This record gives sequence, C-alpha cells and structure tokens, in this order.
Amino acid sequence: MPPFAPSARSKVEPFIAMEVLADAVRREAEGHRVIRMEVGQPGAPAPTPVIAAAHAAITGKLGYTEALGIRPLRLAIAEHYARTYRVSVDPDRIAITAGSSGAFSLAFLAAFDVGARVAVPTPGYPAYRNLLGALGLEAVAIETTAETRWTLTPAMIEKVHAEKPLAGVLVASPANPTGTMYSAESLRSLSEVCDDLGLRFISDEIYHGLVFAGTEATALAFSDNAIVVNSFSKYYCMTGWRIGWMVLPEALVKPVDRLAQNLYLSNNEISQKAAVAAFDPRSLAYLDGVKASYAVNRAHLLQELPAIGFDDLLPVDGAFYVYASVRRFSNDSVDFTRRMLLEAGVAATPGPDFDSRRGSGYMRFSFAGSEADIVEAVQRIGGWLRRG
Amino acid sequence: MPPFAPSARSKVEPFIAMEVLADAVRREAEGHRVIRMEVGQPGAPAPTPVIAAAHAAITGKLGYTEALGIRPLRLAIAEHYARTYRVSVDPDRIAITAGSSGAFSLAFLAAFDVGARVAVPTPGYPAYRNLLGALGLEAVAIETTAETRWTLTPAMIEKVHAEKPLAGVLVASPANPTGTMYSAESLRSLSEVCDDLGLRFISDEIYHGLVFAGTEATALAFSDNAIVVNSFSKYYCMTGWRIGWMVLPEALVKPVDRLAQNLYLSNNEISQKAAVAAFDPRSLAYLDGVKASYAVNRAHLLQELPAIGFDDLLPVDGAFYVYASVRRFSNDSVDFTRRMLLEAGVAATPGPDFDSRRGSGYMRFSFAGSEADIVEAVQRIGGWLRRG
Repeated sequence: MPPFAPSARSKVEPFIAMEVLADAVRREAEGHRVIRMEVGQPGAPAPTPVIAAAHAAITGKLGYTEALGIRPLRLAIAEHYARTYRVSVDPDRIAITAGSSGAFSLAFLAAFDVGARVAVPTPGYPAYRNLLGALGLEAVAIETTAETRWTLTPAMIEKVHAEKPLAGVLVASPANPTGTMYSAESLRSLSEVCDDLGLRFISDEIYHGLVFAGTEATALAFSDNAIVVNSFSKYYCMTGWRIGWMVLPEALVKPVDRLAQNLYLSNNEISQKAAVAAFDPRSLAYLDGVKASYAVNRAHLLQELPAIGFDDLLPVDGAFYVYASVRRFSNDSVDFTRRMLLEAGVAATPGPDFDSRRGSGYMRFSFAGSEADIVEAVQRIGGWLRRG
Repeated sequence: MPPFAPSARSKVEPFIAMEVLADAVRREAEGHRVIRMEVGQPGAPAPTPVIAAAHAAITGKLGYTEALGIRPLRLAIAEHYARTYRVSVDPDRIAITAGSSGAFSLAFLAAFDVGARVAVPTPGYPAYRNLLGALGLEAVAIETTAETRWTLTPAMIEKVHAEKPLAGVLVASPANPTGTMYSAESLRSLSEVCDDLGLRFISDEIYHGLVFAGTEATALAFSDNAIVVNSFSKYYCMTGWRIGWMVLPEALVKPVDRLAQNLYLSNNEISQKAAVAAFDPRSLAYLDGVKASYAVNRAHLLQELPAIGFDDLLPVDGAFYVYASVRRFSNDSVDFTRRMLLEAGVAATPGPDFDSRRGSGYMRFSFAGSEADIVEAVQRIGGWLRRG
C-alpha cells in the first residue's frame, strides 16, 4: 500500500441511493418539486411524549451513561418484549446502541473474528455486506428468489456452510427491500439450523411493528444464541435521534459492554431518555395511526402500480417498501431511476444497491411519506410512462 | 474457536475506572458521600445557547442528515479553526462524529488495513489500544518518561519504525492522563517525521481549549496528511450529547464518507444542531468561565497534593487531570484507590488503565468538578493518609 493511501477496507461500494438523494436535493434546489420515495424514513415526527421527554432531558443534567444504556430504557424494552411477544428478556441482556447500525458494529465485533464468513440474503440491505467487509469479515451473499418467497431456507444455509464453513447468518424480517417476512415456523427452522451447525444467528427486526400481512415473530422466542437487533428509527419515527438496541446472548453481554466502552463510551443521553417515552400508550396509539397511513399507501401502490405497468412486485408483508421489476421498461434500473427523477419528478432507489447481479432489473419505492405524495407519484409515473 | 464463543478481539481489557465508578455509585447508593474525581467529564452543564438550540431542534423536523454532518456545523468548525488557530480548513474536510470515539473508529478503518501497526505513547488513554485491537490493528506502546516530559519524540518513532514498520502514530496534546502538551515545535517535528516516513499522523486535540501553560497548536498547521480529532465533550461541556468531529486529509474524505454511511448512516441531528451554538460568543464566554474554575482547582491541587505527600506529579499543562505517583504510599495503586474510596470517600482512577507496566505506581485525579469538592477531597485524603 502506498503511503497515505486510504485502506483497502474503506473501498466499500457507495450507495447509489445516496447519489439519487443528492440528485433529488439538487432538483429541489433548482425549484422543481420532487416526490421523495428513495429514503427509508418516516415522514411523520416522533410521538409527542418522546418530544416532551427530550425537552425535559435537555433541561436536566446530562453526561456519560452506562455503556450499555440507561436502566429505565433497558427495562422499558424488556417490558416491550413481554407485552408484544410474550417473551421474557432479562434487561441485562439489552444493549442500547446508536440506531441499528451501532448494534451491528458491536454484534459483528463481539461475535466474529477477522476472516469469519457471514451469510446474508440478496436482495438485501447493502450496509450489511459493507460493514462486514470493513470489519474484516466476509459477507457471503445467498441469492433468494420468488420460489422461496425471497427468504433463506435451512437447506440453503447447510449447502453454503458445507462448501466452506460459515460463522454466522444474518436475516431481516420483514426485509428491506423485498418486504418479505419469515413466518414464525421458518424463523424457528432457520435459528435451529444455525444452533445445530454452531452458527451465530443475527435477526434484524428493525421493521417489526410495520407488518401488513401475518404477524412478526422474534428470534428470541426460538434460540438463546441469537442476536436480535432493533431500532427506534422506523416504527417509532425517531430516525434523526439515532437510537436502537440489541438483545444479546448471555455470553456476549460482557464482550459487548467492553467493546462499547472503547468504541463509544456511551450513547446520546437525550435520545435514551426520550426513547423511554416511545412505549407510552399515547405514543403507541399515535404510531399505530402512522402505520395505518402506511397501510393506505401500500394498498394504493399494490393496486395502482400494476395498472401503470409494474406488474411484477415482490411481497409487501411488512416494512415500507415496494421492490418492483422494471424489466418491462428497461434493463438498466439506474438509468431508469435517473430518468424518472428528471422527467417525472419522482425519486426512487435503483436495485443494484440491494442486489449487484440482478438489481438492474428492479427498483425500490418507499411508501413512508404522505398519502397525497404517493397518489401524485403514481399519477406522475403513469403519465411519464405513457408519454415515454 | 468453539461455537458461540465471543470473538478473540472482544477480549479487550476492561477499564478499571469503570469498576471504580461502579464502586463509587454503590457507596453513594448506600448513603455515603463520595467525591467523584474518577470521571473525565465536566461538572458544568452545556452552554445556554446550546440548550436553546436543542429545544428548537426537537420542535422542528428531524431525520437522517448527510453522513459527514450538517453543513452549518461543518462551517462553524471551519470558522473555529480560522478564528482560534488562523488555519484555513475546507469545511468539506470536516466529518461530524459521535464524540471523538466515533471519529477514531472511522479514522482507523479509513487509514489502516488489518495488521497495521500504530504507535501510541504510554501512559495514555486506554481506548486507543483497545479500539485499535478490536479493528484488527496492532497498538505499539512507546513508553514516555519525565526525560522527554512524557512526550514522544521523532527519534523514538524512527527507532520503533526501524525495528518493524509502523503505519501510523497517534498522540494527544494535551494528553490524558499525563496533562503534558507538545509545543508547536515538537508537534511540527513529529508530524514531519511521520510525513517523511510515510506514516499517518493522528492528532487527538480533544483537550484543546483546556490549556493552563503554553498555547496549544493544531497538527493541521503542519501537515496535510494528518488526521485531527476533536470533540464537544470536554471544553464545550457536552459529554452526554455524544458529538465530535475530525478534520481529514483530502484523500480520506470519500473513504470516511462511505464508511460512515455504512457504520451509522448519520449522527444525532439534535446534537448536531445544538453544537453549532457552542461557538456562539455567549457560549464561549461561559466556557471560559468554566475553564477558569478548572484553573482554580488545578492551582489548589498543585499546591496541596504535595503538602499531603503526593510530591511526584506529572506536568499539568492542560486537560483536567493530575497524574500522581503513589509510590510513597503503595506499590499497588488499584488497592490504594480502592481503600481511598472506602476509607476517605474520594474516587480516583488507578494508573494501570493508562500504563499496564508502570501504572501500579500512579493514579489519576480529575479536577473537572466543583471547587468545593476539590478542596474537601484534599482535606479528606490528607486526613486519611495521616490516620493511615
């Protein structure tokens, strides 16, 4: 390596989504109206009790907290598991993190040494593989298809592990961008095959609470070895607050505590205190209202996108994305997305961010925005496709 | 590695300071009054304009920001360099991070690949070596002594690099726990030898603004290859807000941007908006008052600690620590610290956190608390030593 060159591990692929975002912001700055369906964040603000708790926190004394997070928040999350899933979780096993991203860094460092192989499904969230790579781990992409409803199966894991040993498996349910959800039974079978093979199972449950078909299950119900990651960014509408959590197997609590002390000492205390109020009944009532608005958006897209020609949509069991084939219009979704932004004024994310091999045939729409925007977006895209 | 064992790299040494902290909290919970000189955080709250800006931010719209941070904060930091150091910094080279800890993670990942060796002085801040280790890097401890006023010299770096090549050098000025500061000339010579040898120079400037002897220089004045890390936690009294920054060489901006997108997407937006107000003239006037109170504490300790028997103190040019020899009383500072907490009700940090080989002869007092506490602490310790 020449002197002063960036490290090889910093050469992660950039998010095309971020380029789309920059293009969208530029178009807006030029005075054009752009409907923003490229970002995976709620348009709604945080619940009122959260905002009130934050004001109170700022007025009070602030400082370093315990590295794993303030006790009241860890207790509130444990109660959430008891209430929502009827699963008993020792609050000592809960680590508060800077969003789910902060949880993944710690989980990967605590569970895996340099060189370990971790299976992730594609299409999938690109930060998984980039973060694994940056931390000296190998992301092993396993392609999923409509045949298994875009989920990993125990047989796929056994096959890949037999070819060359894995150390862990990471899945999200509901998943970004596919929207697909693992049934309780399929999640159980995945966590069991991981336990049998001695692989660390990591369950990304960040889109829990945003489920429109079926009921989400937590991997905590099936294995004591699983690491479960979650966040206040999606269902709880607290993106900008950068606060999340993970539930750890006993044996990883102290390692994560030590790593957290060295990686970041402690988390933002304002966000920690505010997040306790996210479980207030008034917060949950508000958040269910936000979710109901997503359901309206989802129903509109599932009816209208096929009507304007997007007739190959993936399941949208949960999360707030529609991952759609664009092959009827183009073999290059990056180009298609760019033209759609310029000519129709609608921003979306091209598929290669999520699936390097097959993504050029797909794009992702987020429906976390307002109903009016979603309706207008479909009209704009429909008109543009008819003109085109 | 057996299945489900924590990774080898998670076996970082725990901070003894954290155990002292836990002991201190337990004593307080039992109804004892403990004077807390073990924590490196300001007792004073954040400046009023910062708190007002935070209230305003919470009331407004929040979401993901640019990964490298909001523009107004990057501009305010660039102005800070122009105003304070007469150094021109392109705001595009500034990355906003979750405290200095967040900056170090990104800097190490962007600059170094697995296996690289990075020199750090001892005594020194323990998270450097632990974080380097967790990220697959080798911390090469170079012992400093009173002979060089506890600073690294170019000759030391040349010698260690000749034995086995280094990839980088990390120093803090003023330093924790030694309080020692590099003169502008010595900082220049260090950064020059690093440039000559092709080593990445990382300058931890977190204690800038808290200087009581001499004037602090920034490495930005001497090299375009240096990475400069800073934070709002110390001088700016914003510990619990977890917000800091680094200034990057051009070539590392895009790598850090890509890594940040994958490691944490973006930083807490409330803290980012609040931190802009830390440079408000009213904030700076308040913070200079806080610093003046540290100066009183420092003067008191420098006079009174020798009077009660601590006659071997390291320089306290800056930061808010006194690193003192305890050899006159004990060869085991961990035991000495524990007894001082139990019997005198004063918490401090034993030396082994900072220097595994020689630290048993030292302890660190933080003087970031109130003047009344510092006065009482010396009285208590003095009485205890006389009784002992």
